[in-house]
Amino acid sequence: MKVYKIPEATVMRLSVYSRFLHQLLDEGVNTASSEAIAQGVGVSSAQVRKDLAYFGEFGTRGVGYRVDELYGHLKSILGLDHDWNIILVGAGKLGSALALYQGFAERGFHVSTIVDNDKKIVGNKLGMVTVEPIEVMTQRVKEKDIKVGVLTVPASAAQNVTDLLVEAGIKAILNFSPRVLKVPNTVILRNVDLSVNLEVLSFNLNMNKKN
Amino acid sequence: MKVYKIPEATVMRLSVYSRFLHQLLDEGVNTASSEAIAQGVGVSSAQVRKDLAYFGEFGTRGVGYRVDELYGHLKSILGLDHDWNIILVGAGKLGSALALYQGFAERGFHVSTIVDNDKKIVGNKLGMVTVEPIEVMTQRVKEKDIKVGVLTVPASAAQNVTDLLVEAGIKAILNFSPRVLKVPNTVILRNVDLSVNLEVLSFNLNMNKKN
Repeated sequence: MKVYKIPEATVMRLSVYSRFLHQLLDEGVNTASSEAIAQGVGVSSAQVRKDLAYFGEFGTRGVGYRVDELYGHLKSILGLDHDWNIILVGAGKLGSALALYQGFAERGFHVSTIVDNDKKIVGNKLGMVTVEPIEVMTQRVKEKDIKVGVLTVPASAAQNVTDLLVEAGIKAILNFSPRVLKVPNTVILRNVDLSVNLEVLSFNLNMNKKN
Repeated sequence: MKVYKIPEATVMRLSVYSRFLHQLLDEGVNTASSEAIAQGVGVSSAQVRKDLAYFGEFGTRGVGYRVDELYGHLKSILGLDHDWNIILVGAGKLGSALALYQGFAERGFHVSTIVDNDKKIVGNKLGMVTVEPIEVMTQRVKEKDIKVGVLTVPASAAQNVTDLLVEAGIKAILNFSPRVLKVPNTVILRNVDLSVNLEVLSFNLNMNKKN
């Protein structure tokens, strides 16, 4: 399958579609039209068809998509047809919340190692995982062949931790620290700024007020 | 100022630009080219110019943008030129992390009320705010004229809480619960699924492997 450059917004919607299809499977629904998917997730049916068209021909005209088939395709496209080990660096409030977030494991993301540099936190159990001292970080990445790191450390520590993770062989970083990070081209970096979500809301509230 | 339909991706980038401009102001930088902004946030300079063009003419050819002026414009566009009161419903691990998240207050979002239905949590202090019983929720929204609600409740409670918030006069909801919510057209709903971010990473890791 030849894949062209896919817009990130499309990837995020594929993720949402796949969740909705999983819900349909749970409800015993076998086929779904693009209209049904569109309505279920709150986009237009043209958008659904356009997004799926990036990855070839799915579905049958007049019948719609086979739910299990499309769900399997989307999982494969999203890299969710196998499990991922994750290292979580920083076990403060946000780190703890992420470590215990059910949604990760459901989608095949397993927090297999948690490290922190705070001696008061090291030794705590978060779900099934015990927080280890940050000194074992690179060793755990190598021995468990971990490819994905999640950073919830203070801004001041973020670049240093990133450099160590990259050196240890991490290929993708999800960064919750409010800091612009430098990584080599071979490493995928994604920054999550939780306040951006609130700003999209306030932008829209502002626009509604003016109209 | 006449504003046309702005893509959400643009709004999210405006939020990122404004954060970078704030950083420049802190560093005493007075003017910035679109190239400098582009490099600072990791997009193309054409993208910066296109995003800003939605809102009229900023900047001077050959000189660039006045940092303080552009920052002021962006804050106003994003609805950040005044503060917002927020009610946080659900004070579990994720709710606590959000309540204590510095980034919100920095951008003018003040968590002024926190409620939970768990008697063991009610009475806890999160920063300056004491967790109150969920029974006072609608009363607080009305008396404090709160427009924005943040939901970190279990999926099973999410729609019920949403209905009560809407009835009380909430105009925008940021939903962290893994549940598709129904709101009237007059209410802005934004769903945050934290695992979507990981799925964008796994998608890209998958693509890199194939290329």
